[in-house]
Amino acid sequence: MDDFFRLMKTDGRARRGEVRTAHGTFQTPVFMPVGTQGTVKAVSPDILETLGAEIILGNTYHLYLRPGMEVIREAGDLHAFMNWPHPILTDSGGFQVFSLSSLREITPEGVRFASHLDGSRHFLTPGKVVQIQETLGSDIMMCLDECVAFPSTRGYVQASMELTTRWASASLEAKHREDLALFGIIQGGMYADLRRRHARELADLPFDGFAIGGLSVGEPKGLMWEMVEATVPELPEDRPRYMMGVGKPEDILEGIARGVDMFDCVMPTRNARNGMLFTSRGPVIIKNARYTRDMTPLDPACDCYTCRNFTRAYLRHLFMCREILSAVLNTIHNLHFYLTLTRNARHAIDEGNFVGYKEKLIEQWKQTGP
Amino acid sequence: MDDFFRLMKTDGRARRGEVRTAHGTFQTPVFMPVGTQGTVKAVSPDILETLGAEIILGNTYHLYLRPGMEVIREAGDLHAFMNWPHPILTDSGGFQVFSLSSLREITPEGVRFASHLDGSRHFLTPGKVVQIQETLGSDIMMCLDECVAFPSTRGYVQASMELTTRWASASLEAKHREDLALFGIIQGGMYADLRRRHARELADLPFDGFAIGGLSVGEPKGLMWEMVEATVPELPEDRPRYMMGVGKPEDILEGIARGVDMFDCVMPTRNARNGMLFTSRGPVIIKNARYTRDMTPLDPACDCYTCRNFTRAYLRHLFMCREILSAVLNTIHNLHFYLTLTRNARHAIDEGNFVGYKEKLIEQWKQTGP
Repeated sequence: MDDFFRLMKTDGRARRGEVRTAHGTFQTPVFMPVGTQGTVKAVSPDILETLGAEIILGNTYHLYLRPGMEVIREAGDLHAFMNWPHPILTDSGGFQVFSLSSLREITPEGVRFASHLDGSRHFLTPGKVVQIQETLGSDIMMCLDECVAFPSTRGYVQASMELTTRWASASLEAKHREDLALFGIIQGGMYADLRRRHARELADLPFDGFAIGGLSVGEPKGLMWEMVEATVPELPEDRPRYMMGVGKPEDILEGIARGVDMFDCVMPTRNARNGMLFTSRGPVIIKNARYTRDMTPLDPACDCYTCRNFTRAYLRHLFMCREILSAVLNTIHNLHFYLTLTRNARHAIDEGNFVGYKEKLIEQWKQTGP
Repeated sequence: MDDFFRLMKTDGRARRGEVRTAHGTFQTPVFMPVGTQGTVKAVSPDILETLGAEIILGNTYHLYLRPGMEVIREAGDLHAFMNWPHPILTDSGGFQVFSLSSLREITPEGVRFASHLDGSRHFLTPGKVVQIQETLGSDIMMCLDECVAFPSTRGYVQASMELTTRWASASLEAKHREDLALFGIIQGGMYADLRRRHARELADLPFDGFAIGGLSVGEPKGLMWEMVEATVPELPEDRPRYMMGVGKPEDILEGIARGVDMFDCVMPTRNARNGMLFTSRGPVIIKNARYTRDMTPLDPACDCYTCRNFTRAYLRHLFMCREILSAVLNTIHNLHFYLTLTRNARHAIDEGNFVGYKEKLIEQWKQTGP
């Protein structure tokens, strides 16, 4: 796709860019809230817009099983079904096949598995996965890949990587829609030379962008960054780079510092529902008894709807009562935190001050909390 | 309280009025969304305002046990705690003592019970219940009463009614705050003469308004309306009348037709969470398979956020996935239905056409559904 990505500025290895899709343009670095089953859990599209979300993620595995492609086709596409007129990225479903389903089996042609919902049998090939994502109308599609476990032997990783490369080619061949982008996924386990090799292999293929997969699977943090540092320099400057499923606020800053443009993670939304809230002074566990009579805002430095209107005591009360509003208000806050983090990161890069921005924040979050 | 209620117009027995409280004025007939634990389940205060809710209900029993009065005092009052700056009505807690707690025992002085949360023992007197509601800063407080079961013997009902009258007097004596209103609660079981007698007894006391209690407890619908018809004529014209815990949309219209001004019910919010949605063509059970690929709005005649933005197929999908957004969108719709129903009832009374309005709607709802 022409003009898909525009690199506007660099600040060290950090990059400011812009991605153009059929459903509008978004700015990078970007955080993409996760909308697994056709909804970012607990928030409506109008709230997402208010929060400044520019692109969200949908999960191919979940949507393929429920509501299923017939319903999506009837609706038009995933945008229409969930009433999100802005960009959507979908994963390939491969990760969920391995983490959620049973009876899974890899063959050279694809993956066989039983649904975690009803045990029904399915077989997904790289081509079928592209077809599903084209039905979803995903602005950014992902190739089917094998996400190898940690630790894995070099032999296993290498064979798996070669399979992922073959599947990447098959995915490109299966792609019909010109208006949608397709990303290749770099694997290579925790072997820097394999990461480099795989990045080079996939970079030779006409992908619109590249995802770094198979990270944050239990490896030490230092090893994860080593792998990112091995991968990124092999990727073309003029394509966006997406670090899948990562991560904590500091991980996002560290990823940006290493030249990554796109991030997604369930952490802000999932932790919100579990009562773990991100603040400018570090995380708050809202059920803690110390907040019982705390009539201050969750984060006095935050201007989200939750912090402008409610106290820690009230948020604790809602959480203790298991009220639905607890999940809603906490999700609004945590997403605002992540989206503000990346918005401010973009400003910092624009001003050539990204490292200063990153270090100041990481220092600030280390405080013992409010 | 002077100028608490202003009766502006009658249309048959239906009444158009206005209630003035320290937190603003609301129009009657009114439907009050139920906010049991300091939140109307699944919706934030800004959504309630958008829906046109003018007054909400809080449950004294729940709030007394959790978060407890110390937290409310620290916050200022319930308005401040939950960030609802508009009128609040609270019940006495008596109904929950009988329906939720264990070890409950009535004495001439009050009710003893064990918390349904932690088994802790409590003793509530009429005076203490007023004190709790003054701490909550409830604009409209209710007296502690005994809500008798159905069926009950005439002897039991009569004795209980006399106790409720004594408690009503004790409640008036305990009231200190001039800015808050206090309602007496008419009991009398399913005995029309006892209802009349109790209404006359309480009407002699300087209450700001009167609630009709002990209805919708399992009796036939006809008997319930007989009791309302026995009660209402005994109540002063210049005070509002509140039918507690009622009911279905048609019950609200029938209550208005009999001179009732205020209603509350968990039905719109609870049914929303259970996937039962009120529409202009009758109720919709959203999990029904017939809606799987139904790409029309839930109610094409409705202009709520849910109906303007989502399809039945999507609402069904969210419900089947047990997504939090399901509860949110369904609650928005059902509350909009109830609040529009009473708003339009007010217009109909203003125009002297309430009976026509009522009959047309009830006929329309009898359709087999969309």
